[in-house]
Amino acid sequence: MPDRDLHQLTANEIARAVAAGQCSAVDVAQACLDHIAEREPQVGAWEFLDPDLVLKQARELDAAGPRGPLHGVPVGIKDIIDTADMPTAYGSPIHAGHRPHMDAVCVALTRRAGGLIMGKTVTTEFANRHPGKTRHPRDPQRTPGGSSSGSGAAVGDCMVPLALGTQTTASTIRPAAFNGCVGYRPTWGDLRMAGVMEAAGSVDTLGIIARSVEDVVLYRDVLIDTTPEPAVEIDPRQLRIGYCRSPFWDQADAATQKHLDACAKHLARAGANVLDVALPRDFEQIESVHRRISSFEFVRNRAWEIDNHWDGISDTLKMGRLKHGLACTFAEYRAARTEAEQLRLLLDDEFADCDVLLTPSAAGEAPVGLNETGTAVFCSIWTTCHVPSLTLPLFTGPNGLPLGAQLVGRRNDDRRLFAAALWVMAQYK
Amino acid sequence: MPDRDLHQLTANEIARAVAAGQCSAVDVAQACLDHIAEREPQVGAWEFLDPDLVLKQARELDAAGPRGPLHGVPVGIKDIIDTADMPTAYGSPIHAGHRPHMDAVCVALTRRAGGLIMGKTVTTEFANRHPGKTRHPRDPQRTPGGSSSGSGAAVGDCMVPLALGTQTTASTIRPAAFNGCVGYRPTWGDLRMAGVMEAAGSVDTLGIIARSVEDVVLYRDVLIDTTPEPAVEIDPRQLRIGYCRSPFWDQADAATQKHLDACAKHLARAGANVLDVALPRDFEQIESVHRRISSFEFVRNRAWEIDNHWDGISDTLKMGRLKHGLACTFAEYRAARTEAEQLRLLLDDEFADCDVLLTPSAAGEAPVGLNETGTAVFCSIWTTCHVPSLTLPLFTGPNGLPLGAQLVGRRNDDRRLFAAALWVMAQYK
Repeated sequence: MPDRDLHQLTANEIARAVAAGQCSAVDVAQACLDHIAEREPQVGAWEFLDPDLVLKQARELDAAGPRGPLHGVPVGIKDIIDTADMPTAYGSPIHAGHRPHMDAVCVALTRRAGGLIMGKTVTTEFANRHPGKTRHPRDPQRTPGGSSSGSGAAVGDCMVPLALGTQTTASTIRPAAFNGCVGYRPTWGDLRMAGVMEAAGSVDTLGIIARSVEDVVLYRDVLIDTTPEPAVEIDPRQLRIGYCRSPFWDQADAATQKHLDACAKHLARAGANVLDVALPRDFEQIESVHRRISSFEFVRNRAWEIDNHWDGISDTLKMGRLKHGLACTFAEYRAARTEAEQLRLLLDDEFADCDVLLTPSAAGEAPVGLNETGTAVFCSIWTTCHVPSLTLPLFTGPNGLPLGAQLVGRRNDDRRLFAAALWVMAQYK
Repeated sequence: MPDRDLHQLTANEIARAVAAGQCSAVDVAQACLDHIAEREPQVGAWEFLDPDLVLKQARELDAAGPRGPLHGVPVGIKDIIDTADMPTAYGSPIHAGHRPHMDAVCVALTRRAGGLIMGKTVTTEFANRHPGKTRHPRDPQRTPGGSSSGSGAAVGDCMVPLALGTQTTASTIRPAAFNGCVGYRPTWGDLRMAGVMEAAGSVDTLGIIARSVEDVVLYRDVLIDTTPEPAVEIDPRQLRIGYCRSPFWDQADAATQKHLDACAKHLARAGANVLDVALPRDFEQIESVHRRISSFEFVRNRAWEIDNHWDGISDTLKMGRLKHGLACTFAEYRAARTEAEQLRLLLDDEFADCDVLLTPSAAGEAPVGLNETGTAVFCSIWTTCHVPSLTLPLFTGPNGLPLGAQLVGRRNDDRRLFAAALWVMAQYK
């Protein structure tokens, strides 16, 4: 067992230690609870956490013996996701105290694998922009990112090794990057969304936030409900990395630009084939395409709240996503969907010459201010195009806070993305 | 106001009559309730129906005055769809008595338009194959079709003018055809599914069952949340109809084959451009593609029930969809999704020469036997390819029961499909 406190271990390390009898699920749960008790007043990562319920689950896991590949691993669940034994409020006072009658698919599969549901992590309102109470663990004046704010902060602060988020634009990659985590947004459609409140189904996915690529690989297989297979090692001479500054490069700060440029050179020197990729100009319209799709769907998905609980909706949402959604006609929405489909095929073509793209995860470090969760622009192309991506905690910014590098994979080729990410991580050890 | 009993009117006729003060929402609701009271013991279309709640809604609508384009129109809601004021059991004893805390988007939008939620119509278990109690209104020895069994029977028997269904394979088109209704399956993705229990999200859509094409057009606009626009009239010389017997023609019975052949000739004589369309052989694999996608997703979507209520699941489901889903690997599933995407693009090409396809809705009349809901094969291509389709009640089979003709539209061109359908219906008046 690694020589660190239990709450600092990765999911793979915990699963191995519990399976080997080196510690119990109760030991792990208690270590995480102790750390949370110390840190939660400052961080505010949890919307719901009941230590008794956590320890009860842990004792049951210890009594039952090995159940699956996550046996004894504590997992935080974004409070946009239904849990049968914990309230689920979707980040909104309208739903305060709501207790779903069944688990979301992703929660049921986590339990099936022996995972311990630690509690519900803070989400922005309906996984949109209006922030919850969470602060950046390393600087309470800064945002932890959103919308998976609590999941990013909880994993970054070692409260849990794993957490579930969701992503409609940048809601997993951004908080993962701000908190120095590995964040993963899968190929759209791979992981079932039943029991997750829909923001905009045409682009929504689950997201995994972890502290190692290996943990992402493991948890993804659990959520697919397939036998876990570790990522394969890759020969860098077989790895083609397209360095893609993206059409939004001028919105990245100087530190991000400097680190990304250096990273492309470093990976080339380490043996990979690194080439510059400039996306066709068609991708410059992505913000408009994504906004029409997500806003049109979002405003309809909140029809019940709008008609029954208008006063419970934040002004942020009313003046933002809802206003955009109401202003978008069905014809404009449909045109955007068609444009997105064409961009997907166009991006498939870009991958003819490379296996993964290297691009910024965010504009910079987590910004100061708790009313915003940061720009989403470095994720909107990949989200809209349904391709998988990972943010890796490779750099440190000018204020000593984490900066991520984003690797983007080909649609339906998440495992090649994982293999590339393992190799990239190894170049920074 | 048309000279028929109120419960026999279409949604458009009711909306106009209520708006003109020719009758009240209470009058309409009472007429439907009276007819249901007479017929329900034989048909069994309703999983939940509370006359007091219906009349309370009707009185509120009358008191509030015109609210929207469905003001006073009774609508049946398939019991796979969440309603905040009525139980929702998803066709399963596991969920008996469950009361959702909010309406599905489609229910909220129906209420916003002034629609009156009549009750919950019977669905097969989880919208799969295991049948509920509903019998064919014209012959209690026959299936009403599934999975939207109650919605098809209720509209066909004039208990309500409109009902919501869903379709994962043939679950709207088939029961609509068996019950002599107009059934509509929209372009995939157009109508929000939040609050509808997912069967297989990659192919699931809502479905509308009505007694006129005009009612489908109206209700679709309500569910999109856009201002209603009637379908346009079409010049048949501008209408290109591809007559597509489909790769499954030999599974259609003699009456269906005869009526469809005659229909193609009749429409050509009436002035449309009718051409024979033979789909490329690629489409012969559609059953395998559809089964892999729907079964893989379905078995995961039921993870909570499988792990917590295994004994409450029917043998039909265990030996069918669940077994197939567990036998399908993730690699096979993903390959099927890619094949489906290619077939979608291939089908787009087929529409270069035609505006709509004419094809059977089902193999024949509703079959005798209450353990099955009929073959789905005449819908699986269109469902998998995400194109819109309508079944029209044009023919009568050898036992005096309805036979439908299916019109299939181009993806994202539902309104051209409606225009074509109106013209086709007019040729059979």
